[in-house]
Amino acid sequence: MHIAMMGLGRMGMNMARRLLRGGHTVTVWNRSADKVRQMVQEGAQGADSPEAMVRMLPQPRIVWCMLPAGDVTRQTLETLAGLLSPGDMVIEGANSYWRDDAPQAAMLAERGIGYVDAGVSGGIWGLEEGYCTMVGGDAAHVALAAPALDTLAPADGWRHVGPVGAGHFVKMVHNGIEYALMESYGEGFQLLREGPFPGLDLHAVAALWNRGSVVRSWLLELLEAALQKDPQLDSIQGYVEDSGAGRWTVLETVHHGVAAPVLAQALYRRFASRQDNAFSNRVLAALRNEFGGHAVKRS
Amino acid sequence: MHIAMMGLGRMGMNMARRLLRGGHTVTVWNRSADKVRQMVQEGAQGADSPEAMVRMLPQPRIVWCMLPAGDVTRQTLETLAGLLSPGDMVIEGANSYWRDDAPQAAMLAERGIGYVDAGVSGGIWGLEEGYCTMVGGDAAHVALAAPALDTLAPADGWRHVGPVGAGHFVKMVHNGIEYALMESYGEGFQLLREGPFPGLDLHAVAALWNRGSVVRSWLLELLEAALQKDPQLDSIQGYVEDSGAGRWTVLETVHHGVAAPVLAQALYRRFASRQDNAFSNRVLAALRNEFGGHAVKRS
Amino acid sequence: MHIAMMGLGRMGMNMARRLLRGGHTVTVWNRSADKVRQMVQEGAQGADSPEAMVRMLPQPRIVWCMLPAGDVTRQTLETLAGLLSPGDMVIEGANSYWRDDAPQAAMLAERGIGYVDAGVSGGIWGLEEGYCTMVGGDAAHVALAAPALDTLAPADGWRHVGPVGAGHFVKMVHNGIEYALMESYGEGFQLLREGPFPGLDLHAVAALWNRGSVVRSWLLELLEAALQKDPQLDSIQGYVEDSGAGRWTVLETVHHGVAAPVLAQALYRRFASRQDNAFSNRVLAALRNEFGGHAVKRS
Amino acid sequence: MHIAMMGLGRMGMNMARRLLRGGHTVTVWNRSADKVRQMVQEGAQGADSPEAMVRMLPQPRIVWCMLPAGDVTRQTLETLAGLLSPGDMVIEGANSYWRDDAPQAAMLAERGIGYVDAGVSGGIWGLEEGYCTMVGGDAAHVALAAPALDTLAPADGWRHVGPVGAGHFVKMVHNGIEYALMESYGEGFQLLREGPFPGLDLHAVAALWNRGSVVRSWLLELLEAALQKDPQLDSIQGYVEDSGAGRWTVLETVHHGVAAPVLAQALYRRFASRQDNAFSNRVLAALRNEFGGHAVKRS
Repeated sequence: MHIAMMGLGRMGMNMARRLLRGGHTVTVWNRSADKVRQMVQEGAQGADSPEAMVRMLPQPRIVWCMLPAGDVTRQTLETLAGLLSPGDMVIEGANSYWRDDAPQAAMLAERGIGYVDAGVSGGIWGLEEGYCTMVGGDAAHVALAAPALDTLAPADGWRHVGPVGAGHFVKMVHNGIEYALMESYGEGFQLLREGPFPGLDLHAVAALWNRGSVVRSWLLELLEAALQKDPQLDSIQGYVEDSGAGRWTVLETVHHGVAAPVLAQALYRRFASRQDNAFSNRVLAALRNEFGGHAVKRS
Repeated sequence: MHIAMMGLGRMGMNMARRLLRGGHTVTVWNRSADKVRQMVQEGAQGADSPEAMVRMLPQPRIVWCMLPAGDVTRQTLETLAGLLSPGDMVIEGANSYWRDDAPQAAMLAERGIGYVDAGVSGGIWGLEEGYCTMVGGDAAHVALAAPALDTLAPADGWRHVGPVGAGHFVKMVHNGIEYALMESYGEGFQLLREGPFPGLDLHAVAALWNRGSVVRSWLLELLEAALQKDPQLDSIQGYVEDSGAGRWTVLETVHHGVAAPVLAQALYRRFASRQDNAFSNRVLAALRNEFGGHAVKRS
Repeated sequence: MHIAMMGLGRMGMNMARRLLRGGHTVTVWNRSADKVRQMVQEGAQGADSPEAMVRMLPQPRIVWCMLPAGDVTRQTLETLAGLLSPGDMVIEGANSYWRDDAPQAAMLAERGIGYVDAGVSGGIWGLEEGYCTMVGGDAAHVALAAPALDTLAPADGWRHVGPVGAGHFVKMVHNGIEYALMESYGEGFQLLREGPFPGLDLHAVAALWNRGSVVRSWLLELLEAALQKDPQLDSIQGYVEDSGAGRWTVLETVHHGVAAPVLAQALYRRFASRQDNAFSNRVLAALRNEFGGHAVKRS
Repeated sequence: MHIAMMGLGRMGMNMARRLLRGGHTVTVWNRSADKVRQMVQEGAQGADSPEAMVRMLPQPRIVWCMLPAGDVTRQTLETLAGLLSPGDMVIEGANSYWRDDAPQAAMLAERGIGYVDAGVSGGIWGLEEGYCTMVGGDAAHVALAAPALDTLAPADGWRHVGPVGAGHFVKMVHNGIEYALMESYGEGFQLLREGPFPGLDLHAVAALWNRGSVVRSWLLELLEAALQKDPQLDSIQGYVEDSGAGRWTVLETVHHGVAAPVLAQALYRRFASRQDNAFSNRVLAALRNEFGGHAVKRS
């Protein structure tokens, strides 16, 4: 099929490549033109504006948005609403908040433009291994996107999970689980390292566990790779960002009354990893000093 | 090699089978004789007592203990101490507390008997897929056990991780992580089920995530299988046992000052799953009634 | 001063009483008239409609809203917007979401009507002990409310903490902390009860700790009272409701990146207290069965 | 009564003073003699060795041990076992592990010496306000100690809670709760500080909440005092020690199968407060880099 890819970041550029390799015609647009030129060299059609991009597509036009979630995506969808025609369709593939999908889909539907939300997992490995993709929207719209999804995903690696928003919702929960899996390994490996057997070969343990143990997983394979390169992770600081999805997951557990202690702890540990001298800890130190006369570290 | 297997429970019996299939001679003993007869039919040598078992082994004798952890294992090791000779060796493969290994090894070492502790993962799948095995002990003792370990484990699936106790310690942390991974999926799938998109096909999501997503894992494959059989797990009660390893892991995090919120929560959720009407919750309900006049559910 | 009280629930009725005792003139309105009649017998002026209530007040009219948070409160404020005059003022004292205050204040400000949000703590004890009250709004509006606040609160027990919304925000955090304090005592007393010294006199411990220990508090005094009436809380079920404030607190910690493991756990325990057979626990039981052949409790 | 106080640290010295003020005769011993001299100036009898101390006491001799928990206390009790006579008694008042009490009591009982364990709360405020004291042991031994306990504690502020060990056990749970209460306030005040209303007067909120709110407590009074001295706790580092009791509490919850998420989190937050660049966080950062190509902070 002929499809447009808007946004050539870490994810979008590799997805365009995978589509090209799959035999599709891909028209690309990106805010900075150098990445467009790069993809033209690799076989894509380059557009220097959304308007030009839209003109280059056959009808019904299919546009995959892979831009930063939030304002940039929303403004781009508003631009597309003015450029596309009834029967055209947008696939919103960013790491977006699922609550944004319904209003965006409604805005486009007013002009007869279709909307599919796609939660895409796979990171930098997706180019070779394929992108696991969770898709929400009307069946007719998803059918239009299917040829691209077949190429982007590994075998059986995409699915229409529900109405508009469901794709991003399922992806959100995926990321919430991901945070908690990562934290599980993190805590366990810290205990291996700081427990009663100093000098355990952490890389060897990760490698071993990946061969037949109950805790084997893709994340553990990645940890095995990381520990091979840097056995004590000495070159890495324990400063951990969080994207929106981990936060949204915790918000949803609160909204829906789902007890989720592990999902929430995994998020809070990331917050704490970025905060030296947290105020809550200063409160504790101050209280210990007040009631017990315990020494306090002074700033 | 010729090896004895003491204990033909869920784990020991399949391990004996895998050793037989690997061409080893296996002498088996079990508390109840019917399982011994079963294994004799499958090609093992059957012993009707530990004494008989020891007599049937060539020197140096290698005995794999796969009995219930704790008292049964300890008493069996004391019995073996009186039956074995210098140069013989025991492999202690139960789900034992690593702190028990050093005194048990010392007790046997007084008589010149070797001791290797083996943490074995793989469950009922080990027969076909192999048992991932974490081994602690002296190098010379581990070398004696190597032919059996080569057969029991999948390729590269066993490793000598440290001195006596280290095998069980690494296995303990493995199980602690396992609890937390399981809880991560549990909370996430509950949110999928009770969130804003009722009727999500949970089995389909598990299957999808196993195809290329960041959270793919063996545990998720098992969950995919379970959800295929019972899409809402309606036939299963949310009553979750815990074995010792999850508890020991939390104890170690406390002893070694390792912050492990996710590992501990995963354990506490299991405790709570088995307790209706927890006293802590009754305290909360009573307090709400005291300060706010809030209605209380009476027993 | 002359003030109206809308809503004669558990909180509003006692607050009207305390205002009457303090020498104020209080005009009361309530959805069901019997409580109005009750308060008239106790010295209040009764109004049979918001319109009548407003007509009975001198200008500038001061109306205290003590209605259920959410829709009821919002609709009542919209009604008041059509009845009150420039210079009049509303004090919104319900357990409301602080994010609702700014739009409500703006809606009233369009008509020149003032708005103060008041977070009120004290429960059923407030009538005798006074209501600790956290107030948000413009200084001029708060000054109008001051005579009523002086009466309602204990000495130094109300304060203007910030702009519109700040009163309810501070009250929200108060309740979030309250949940965590309650959970702290709940867990501790469960350990006292189920630990190595069976038969500990829990009431005696609560009473003892209230006399000079570091953990003495008003909540512990309430627990002491509850345990005196029912030493094992046998008559109470461990089923714990949560109001909005505990949830909002956790949402805010996520929005503002504040690690709050204890606040969140306290909320999640309440969720779990109301859920038998949680799906997350069924996932765990199913997984244990899949990998280990562990027995499962069937429904 | 005439009583000996061994150990003149922060707690022991003030307890000796309170006993003196109560009209008791107090013989003091301390490892460093300057504190003995200080107390002699305040009216105590000074002993320059345990032997001298024992000789100065009338029979039955009552010795209060207020030394560092663990080895120092145990060794001192062994010394006393050689110095005291049948009918004498030791009160072990340190912040000791309750599991140590039974063997220590048994060791002394072999020589006819009584043993009472006393968990003492009150910190540096105890001198003026009294020490809340939880007492374990035989009734006859507790009766011997009663005159001192009556003086040390505030009114109704000591109690015989159970057999040997129960005093320290109840004190342990007290401290576990204390950690969680402190963490509750810490998290809440951090949210006040970093939430949507910058510049909230934290001291004013603490002061307000202490006047009639549900969360009022002695700890909150201490926080009010600390915030008055240093409104943002700028002079204090968020580095929080933990004594044994918080750890032992979590260990007991695991041993007894009591779900205690809040007690455990409060402990883990203290661990984390003392650890920069935690390995678990480095694992997370490494994994994010592996799967997503996310930038990592390099050391």
